[in-house]
Amino acid sequence: MNTFGHHLRLTTFGESHGPAIGGILDGMPSRIRISVEAVQERLDRRRPGNAKGTSARRETDKIRILSGLSFDGLTLGSPIGFIIENNDARPGDYERYADKFRPNHADFTYQAKYGIREAAGGGRASARETANWVAAGALAGHLTDLCGVCVKAWISGVGPWKAEDLYSGESDPERIQAVIAEAGERGDSVGGLVSCRISGVPAGLGDPVFGKLHSRLAAAMMSINAAKSFEYGLGRKASEAYGSEMADIFVPDACRPGRIGTLTNFSGGIQGGISNGNDICLAVAFKPTPTIMMPQATVDIHGQECMLQPAGRHDVCVAMRAVPVVEAMATLVIADALIASQAQSHTLWR
Amino acid sequence: MNTFGHHLRLTTFGESHGPAIGGILDGMPSRIRISVEAVQERLDRRRPGNAKGTSARRETDKIRILSGLSFDGLTLGSPIGFIIENNDARPGDYERYADKFRPNHADFTYQAKYGIREAAGGGRASARETANWVAAGALAGHLTDLCGVCVKAWISGVGPWKAEDLYSGESDPERIQAVIAEAGERGDSVGGLVSCRISGVPAGLGDPVFGKLHSRLAAAMMSINAAKSFEYGLGRKASEAYGSEMADIFVPDACRPGRIGTLTNFSGGIQGGISNGNDICLAVAFKPTPTIMMPQATVDIHGQECMLQPAGRHDVCVAMRAVPVVEAMATLVIADALIASQAQSHTLWR
Amino acid sequence: MNTFGHHLRLTTFGESHGPAIGGILDGMPSRIRISVEAVQERLDRRRPGNAKGTSARRETDKIRILSGLSFDGLTLGSPIGFIIENNDARPGDYERYADKFRPNHADFTYQAKYGIREAAGGGRASARETANWVAAGALAGHLTDLCGVCVKAWISGVGPWKAEDLYSGESDPERIQAVIAEAGERGDSVGGLVSCRISGVPAGLGDPVFGKLHSRLAAAMMSINAAKSFEYGLGRKASEAYGSEMADIFVPDACRPGRIGTLTNFSGGIQGGISNGNDICLAVAFKPTPTIMMPQATVDIHGQECMLQPAGRHDVCVAMRAVPVVEAMATLVIADALIASQAQSHTLWR
Amino acid sequence: MNTFGHHLRLTTFGESHGPAIGGILDGMPSRIRISVEAVQERLDRRRPGNAKGTSARRETDKIRILSGLSFDGLTLGSPIGFIIENNDARPGDYERYADKFRPNHADFTYQAKYGIREAAGGGRASARETANWVAAGALAGHLTDLCGVCVKAWISGVGPWKAEDLYSGESDPERIQAVIAEAGERGDSVGGLVSCRISGVPAGLGDPVFGKLHSRLAAAMMSINAAKSFEYGLGRKASEAYGSEMADIFVPDACRPGRIGTLTNFSGGIQGGISNGNDICLAVAFKPTPTIMMPQATVDIHGQECMLQPAGRHDVCVAMRAVPVVEAMATLVIADALIASQAQSHTLWR
Repeated sequence: MNTFGHHLRLTTFGESHGPAIGGILDGMPSRIRISVEAVQERLDRRRPGNAKGTSARRETDKIRILSGLSFDGLTLGSPIGFIIENNDARPGDYERYADKFRPNHADFTYQAKYGIREAAGGGRASARETANWVAAGALAGHLTDLCGVCVKAWISGVGPWKAEDLYSGESDPERIQAVIAEAGERGDSVGGLVSCRISGVPAGLGDPVFGKLHSRLAAAMMSINAAKSFEYGLGRKASEAYGSEMADIFVPDACRPGRIGTLTNFSGGIQGGISNGNDICLAVAFKPTPTIMMPQATVDIHGQECMLQPAGRHDVCVAMRAVPVVEAMATLVIADALIASQAQSHTLWR
Repeated sequence: MNTFGHHLRLTTFGESHGPAIGGILDGMPSRIRISVEAVQERLDRRRPGNAKGTSARRETDKIRILSGLSFDGLTLGSPIGFIIENNDARPGDYERYADKFRPNHADFTYQAKYGIREAAGGGRASARETANWVAAGALAGHLTDLCGVCVKAWISGVGPWKAEDLYSGESDPERIQAVIAEAGERGDSVGGLVSCRISGVPAGLGDPVFGKLHSRLAAAMMSINAAKSFEYGLGRKASEAYGSEMADIFVPDACRPGRIGTLTNFSGGIQGGISNGNDICLAVAFKPTPTIMMPQATVDIHGQECMLQPAGRHDVCVAMRAVPVVEAMATLVIADALIASQAQSHTLWR
Repeated sequence: MNTFGHHLRLTTFGESHGPAIGGILDGMPSRIRISVEAVQERLDRRRPGNAKGTSARRETDKIRILSGLSFDGLTLGSPIGFIIENNDARPGDYERYADKFRPNHADFTYQAKYGIREAAGGGRASARETANWVAAGALAGHLTDLCGVCVKAWISGVGPWKAEDLYSGESDPERIQAVIAEAGERGDSVGGLVSCRISGVPAGLGDPVFGKLHSRLAAAMMSINAAKSFEYGLGRKASEAYGSEMADIFVPDACRPGRIGTLTNFSGGIQGGISNGNDICLAVAFKPTPTIMMPQATVDIHGQECMLQPAGRHDVCVAMRAVPVVEAMATLVIADALIASQAQSHTLWR
Repeated sequence: MNTFGHHLRLTTFGESHGPAIGGILDGMPSRIRISVEAVQERLDRRRPGNAKGTSARRETDKIRILSGLSFDGLTLGSPIGFIIENNDARPGDYERYADKFRPNHADFTYQAKYGIREAAGGGRASARETANWVAAGALAGHLTDLCGVCVKAWISGVGPWKAEDLYSGESDPERIQAVIAEAGERGDSVGGLVSCRISGVPAGLGDPVFGKLHSRLAAAMMSINAAKSFEYGLGRKASEAYGSEMADIFVPDACRPGRIGTLTNFSGGIQGGISNGNDICLAVAFKPTPTIMMPQATVDIHGQECMLQPAGRHDVCVAMRAVPVVEAMATLVIADALIASQAQSHTLWR
């Protein structure tokens, strides 16, 4: 299943070390002005090689948009096709892995499922695929921008360090870099937590009962490579809470007369699967990069025990790279829900 | 969106205090022998009123299967339609809420989305809907049984108590009942954690990149009323881990010659979105029941401040009721993936 | 696949001689006033036994709506579940067919596909299923009515008789009854042609490239039992035409200043897969009822030759019964497209 | 909606005079050997400029496959992304149309739907898009080939000429060319009929009730530019037939002991929406190319009457170009149904 979304659908293709990756974004309303430069900027932000502890692979990640835009940059309502060439593919780096299963990677499971796999760089399982998502999220962001939605993600934990309030935006770049540097120097990798706040979402987005907004967000976030948990609002702590402590009491909205707000936001902006107008707050935990620069025992495709001496170019902490991907996936979910809400609007049929 | 699944699709309907709820399960392979009694047993297990601290609503929850089975109980390959009548609906209980928004409920968001809502019992937002899911999960369970899959959920945390190992099956019924009783006596409610272990899953289930098995499971679990977080394998703790500590080293499978196993199961049975043959381990946090037996401030549909004096019949800890629902949703996801894997099987086309 | 539609989705269940048939209509916008009586009237029109030459089966076809409506008949935005009990099921009538394949029926192909089949009345393959469609079409009709759309089907051909202009509404009830009576007296059955005109459709409905409005209509019509061809506008004759003869010349619309019309309607109201504001005109050919009251040679499920002496209750001309079904399916397609057009509207995002 | 298919899904993009068109074919089983040369050959067959009366546009139509294949040409099970560059795009040719609505084209309806349109070559509405379909059909053909399915389409009618038996394969190239040449010399265009025979299809493909095999084929064929009717088996003539004349009597299959055949094939290989093992026979009528080389009256986007002096490069008879497109779409439908039948197989679950 290489398609994501319902009204706004992203379909992608591409192996890590093939000639190119790309996608088709279908369902964008027409006459929205797109800045290709803004899309490129997002891709640049995701690009490896921009920070210490990230992969040394050097890709220009230049997007080529092949359809769906008028000569002056307006969406035509037709699907937006795009490709990103792989310039720095080095399939040779992976020859040593071709017949060995790397621990915690998708090598074994792809082989089990397909009876064949592209060893180089993990093939389709590579996080390189997320460049497609960032491109699509940036395109969709032009729609959410029009609606006043703002999506912001950041690192709220890495290894032993964690922000006290997951949703306050609090971070500690110095500490984060120190943890990553220390792990990297040992040839190790480290996990991390990414928080995300989506503000400006109107009340009424999301669908009962299987299309709950947080269910869609969960599916989106758990699609990201290395994601191990999803939570929103009170999240995991909800299991320890008492009802009397966590009620979001409704009050007349002080700033917007005639509208309704809440005193607190334990609900994380979603009640009964539908946005309530508060900021949507979520967090996603990412495991450490599975590839570490230490010898590891494993088996080969014949079931024989062997040793693996890792090489290739890898991030120390994938959570760092996931920040723009979390934003992109959140943007795609919200854009989809905004379009859906137009279709369902109870005010349009009268 | 009232349909769940891809190859095996459950579509449901029903308001909490309407005449009946029900669903259609489409995509079951033909010639599978169904025990209607086994389905009824599952429903009985979910039924309110069977334990202290659960809602006093008394429903017989008798399922009536209307199609899809031969006279001798074999699936025909046609959709299985079923209904469950609401016998103990008391819409009158909710009249006092008709124009007030209950905190942490879906009242406000449904009104925002639809411009209308069924106040009685939360209408479509009620957990009564999960009876449909349990019925469908029990039907699908006949398929997963044939494949040797076993799905087991249990309470692994409630309020201050939490199991040390989320996936060991460890529970503490006495402690759990004490926590719930204490909260209930105060008119309060309390959150809980449900763990689930799915064993017997063959390697190769799940789809890259947007149909990852854990993404499907996350979407399924986050569809359950009151769910606030989803995690699998190392889960939330992954953000604190180092790569060198959590590698699931591949080894020849001692019990099954020629097959491959792992020394540990930090991955939770899924690697790269595809099952690896190990047990799938996941956990879901549920918030406390939003309705508590204490007066609460709120606003009415005209935006005026008012007080809410709760009544109706409510669980103290929804997590308790969620256990069979978690199992049902997990079963639906695995059954769907099993059917998908037949379609994609690389061994069938040669 | 027992689900039809994209934004407005009908999912159905039911065997001809099971306890009940029914369906779930999901995606209706909220706050639309539904007349259950109007839905029942539509069902009554489809009902067998109302005209000479139709099946003698006597069903009251009373619909029971189980969800999705408020107490005062407004749609809630939640799925509308409904069932229609089978009162006059006589599975015994079909015992003689249980191990024989009736020619031109679905007996053999269901057995091939499913390895099992419900012999009574064709099971799921029975035209009784279309009662579900008529019910859903009548519900959806409340939406299309609001938008000023009018759907009208009629018999435009039966056996040797055919209307000169398929889309003029011309019919000949006397001639039609004579042809059917003659065939029925001989124990034979006869085919027919149903034309349909959909007026009041706004320009802009339908989707390139795989969601063309006529492609959706074709799929809908070819879902109806016994349908063998679909055409719209010039239809089959288009293959004989020259371009210079069939151009629909655009002109300023005389009645609606500032709008554009065409001098002719060879296009049948759809250009490039999208409605142009003209009436949508289509026609569907139906084969004769496969069951005739004459002995027929066939084989049994063991592959042995045998004779079939038909019985049961059957229509002489299924096209007669198909008229309200054609209207229902057309209504579902247009309602779906109307909802889609809201989602895609280029005027909503500015 | 730019996605076609359920298990095997083709998603496409591209405007006629944009930089490139392309698509993603998702759902191909793994380990199928693909000949890129065979795909290219199919594209060459569809290419304009290969016959008299076809457009003078010169495109090399070289396909570039970007993913989904191993280095030695086996499918990986991942999506197959491909692009076809537009080399001979001449948007300037269409400047004269930019503000006029061409009769029987999609100009007016696209403007109505999207509020914007790409005038050059019809943009997304151009038949150039069908190159994507032919590429995907050729890829899918490797799967249908493995299953012994053969798809063959041909011209069975053009203008005044029509084959007596639509499904016999009878054609008359000389007569066809004469009709087209005559029309072309007058600056006119002419309609045509394309027949298609699909042999080697196993019994049991297709789904009741909304996924009938002929319903899927109808939707596929009616997606092709200029298609105005679809019929299968007896087709349109079914409306004139009597049941006693058109029964396909079942008999033991003389060639394949233990299997069942029919004496005739009025059903066109499909009964109750499911293949019965006979050849599937269908026919599609195409209207004349809307653009003719004669002045035509029309209106411009401001609603003012004006004259249109056509230019550009156009086919005289689009049906000629549609032959490989009909084959491609038929192949995609059958491949999809073959994959579906694996998922549903009643023999796999025991």
